[in-house]
Amino acid sequence: MRHISVLGSTGSIGTQTLEVARANGDIRIEALAARGNIALLEEQIREFHPRTVCVYDEAKAAELKVKVADTGTKVYAGQEGLIEVATEAKAKTLVTGIVGMIGIEPTVAAIREGKNIALANKETLVCAGHIIMPLAAREGVKILPVDSEHSAIFQCLRGNKKNRIRKILLTASGGPFRGYTRKQLEKVTLQDALRHPTWNMGHKVTIDSSTMVNKGLELIEARWLFDVEVDEIEVLVQPQSILHSAVEFMDGAVMAELGTPDMKLPIQYALYYPKRKKLAGSKRLDLAALGKLDFSAPDFKAFPGLKLAYHAGRLGGSLPTVFNAANEVAVRAFLDEKISYLQIASCIEDAMEQHEKVGLLGSPAVSDILALQKSTEAWLKARYHLA
Amino acid sequence: MRHISVLGSTGSIGTQTLEVARANGDIRIEALAARGNIALLEEQIREFHPRTVCVYDEAKAAELKVKVADTGTKVYAGQEGLIEVATEAKAKTLVTGIVGMIGIEPTVAAIREGKNIALANKETLVCAGHIIMPLAAREGVKILPVDSEHSAIFQCLRGNKKNRIRKILLTASGGPFRGYTRKQLEKVTLQDALRHPTWNMGHKVTIDSSTMVNKGLELIEARWLFDVEVDEIEVLVQPQSILHSAVEFMDGAVMAELGTPDMKLPIQYALYYPKRKKLAGSKRLDLAALGKLDFSAPDFKAFPGLKLAYHAGRLGGSLPTVFNAANEVAVRAFLDEKISYLQIASCIEDAMEQHEKVGLLGSPAVSDILALQKSTEAWLKARYHLA
Repeated sequence: MRHISVLGSTGSIGTQTLEVARANGDIRIEALAARGNIALLEEQIREFHPRTVCVYDEAKAAELKVKVADTGTKVYAGQEGLIEVATEAKAKTLVTGIVGMIGIEPTVAAIREGKNIALANKETLVCAGHIIMPLAAREGVKILPVDSEHSAIFQCLRGNKKNRIRKILLTASGGPFRGYTRKQLEKVTLQDALRHPTWNMGHKVTIDSSTMVNKGLELIEARWLFDVEVDEIEVLVQPQSILHSAVEFMDGAVMAELGTPDMKLPIQYALYYPKRKKLAGSKRLDLAALGKLDFSAPDFKAFPGLKLAYHAGRLGGSLPTVFNAANEVAVRAFLDEKISYLQIASCIEDAMEQHEKVGLLGSPAVSDILALQKSTEAWLKARYHLA
Repeated sequence: MRHISVLGSTGSIGTQTLEVARANGDIRIEALAARGNIALLEEQIREFHPRTVCVYDEAKAAELKVKVADTGTKVYAGQEGLIEVATEAKAKTLVTGIVGMIGIEPTVAAIREGKNIALANKETLVCAGHIIMPLAAREGVKILPVDSEHSAIFQCLRGNKKNRIRKILLTASGGPFRGYTRKQLEKVTLQDALRHPTWNMGHKVTIDSSTMVNKGLELIEARWLFDVEVDEIEVLVQPQSILHSAVEFMDGAVMAELGTPDMKLPIQYALYYPKRKKLAGSKRLDLAALGKLDFSAPDFKAFPGLKLAYHAGRLGGSLPTVFNAANEVAVRAFLDEKISYLQIASCIEDAMEQHEKVGLLGSPAVSDILALQKSTEAWLKARYHLA
């Protein structure tokens, strides 16, 4: 029996984690946390009988508490509730399928309690990689990537020593505007940006994927997960999203992981690592039927967000937090049709420049990171009149 | 210091093995064997100072003996000489870069002496896999593939349990006649067949690659190397020869090894396994510059040799030996312009049918294998008037 807790159980990663648990039958769900979808969370409680749940929204938590009074499941709320779920005594692994900076503190708390992390929360490593990775090493816990790209790299490294890496190839679909010039991107509307060919995602991630900022965040995550410099990571555009990422070793051999796009594979891989198990309902990859895989280099001029991510990753410290926080504000503003598509990258660049002028923190604490997110947001809102 | 001996030191695998030794500086060459190129073998003796050499051709051996009398290197001849080289006491690993059935006995002798085998001789596993693999297991020696496809599969399996394999994807360039119909193949001449786009090979291998019999032999080798059924191996046409082969695991993940075509990579990988080392002078793979990888299923109608290989591998026993021996005779006859291109497969099919009628041996001894090669040759020569 594997004992796990899930942050973000009603989201995409969370529901697929529960599908994997359901299909395998030997995973015990100890605790769940959701933002506010209490209808789905109640169903999950009645199916998986967790000891502990958290609803981040306090009012919704109170509502759920009444509804599930018959179940014996304890209901918590807010950030403290997330930490209760993250540190639930019976769980051995925490799946961090939660979105945003709120994922950092519970992850730190779980690592301190000796739990392995099946990591899907981007902010954890982007903003706090310098805290998380040494802490995990000290506590002897594993940070197991759940993202398909990072899982692919992790699989490619299997059985190989880290110091034999020459280069990591982080693949990107290139998004819906692959091949567009800057001129063409000027005319991109919100409607254009919300179409994405391969994955079914939320609006924020869809925009991040189209600007390649998403890939930039993954770049910084990979830098921490695999302990390399960002300049040892090369972004490779692979529009079919079949080759999930690769590693070039110093002898020239390039190991790659390929497959049909299915998040359940990296989720299951992280939960059962190092064991591989049959994956229920997975579509098999048929390369002959597919016919070809395309590759190209990313266009840094058309997608400056990726270039800014390299810069943020290279300088490190507090700059990746600013990169991420500025992007959050900018994407929100774009979704509210307050700024244009190309202004997303301008916002990030301005906020980073401003932060570098004021002074980078070399090794910000979690409290610094959270404060910095707020100050970046305030500065950008004033600068771009986003009130 | 790694101590190795090389069978076939003046051939393609042999010279590249010595290049790897030269570039690394920590490989000691204990023994060398060549068929008859004593000019090159003499150079190799003067550079690498092996204790023992063999020239298969007896007259040439006598000639070399005189020439290198000043060196202290012992010179042997014939099959006994090959066994002297294969069992040279100081060597830990034997590279079998020799072509043909004559490679089997020395390989068996080397395994009995506890030497690891860096395997490039196809006949060893095609004809005697049922002898070699259990013997290697009993003696606790490693059979390390040197062929780029098998090395790729071996690399993909790294860190993974064999019983987690769902399918092996053995890639093939498809040869110069990829996409040809049977009708078009009827008109293929010797000149047409001796052109090959990717590798620089000898005539026999060039023809085998064009008929896909080469891939059929690799199929049967893979069956033994990785202990799977031939029907768990799928041949996948990958014309650029960049994706060297892959393994699909039961969770749906496909691990692949890619690289520029360079035999020195699998040679070095076998010699230093499990360590990866910088490979001198290797060209790095640049997928973005390459632009794409193509994939297709093999055409079993146009290339019946591959279908026959599946049949031979499925039935096993003595049938793969007949498959291989018949192909040798047929290719020789085609190179001598005595039969047409499509008759190569017909010869193989006829010989296999005849052998099945007479009766398969379930587990032929090495002596049976050698006798069977001779009888197959004699039968085919009579049948096709090849005298």
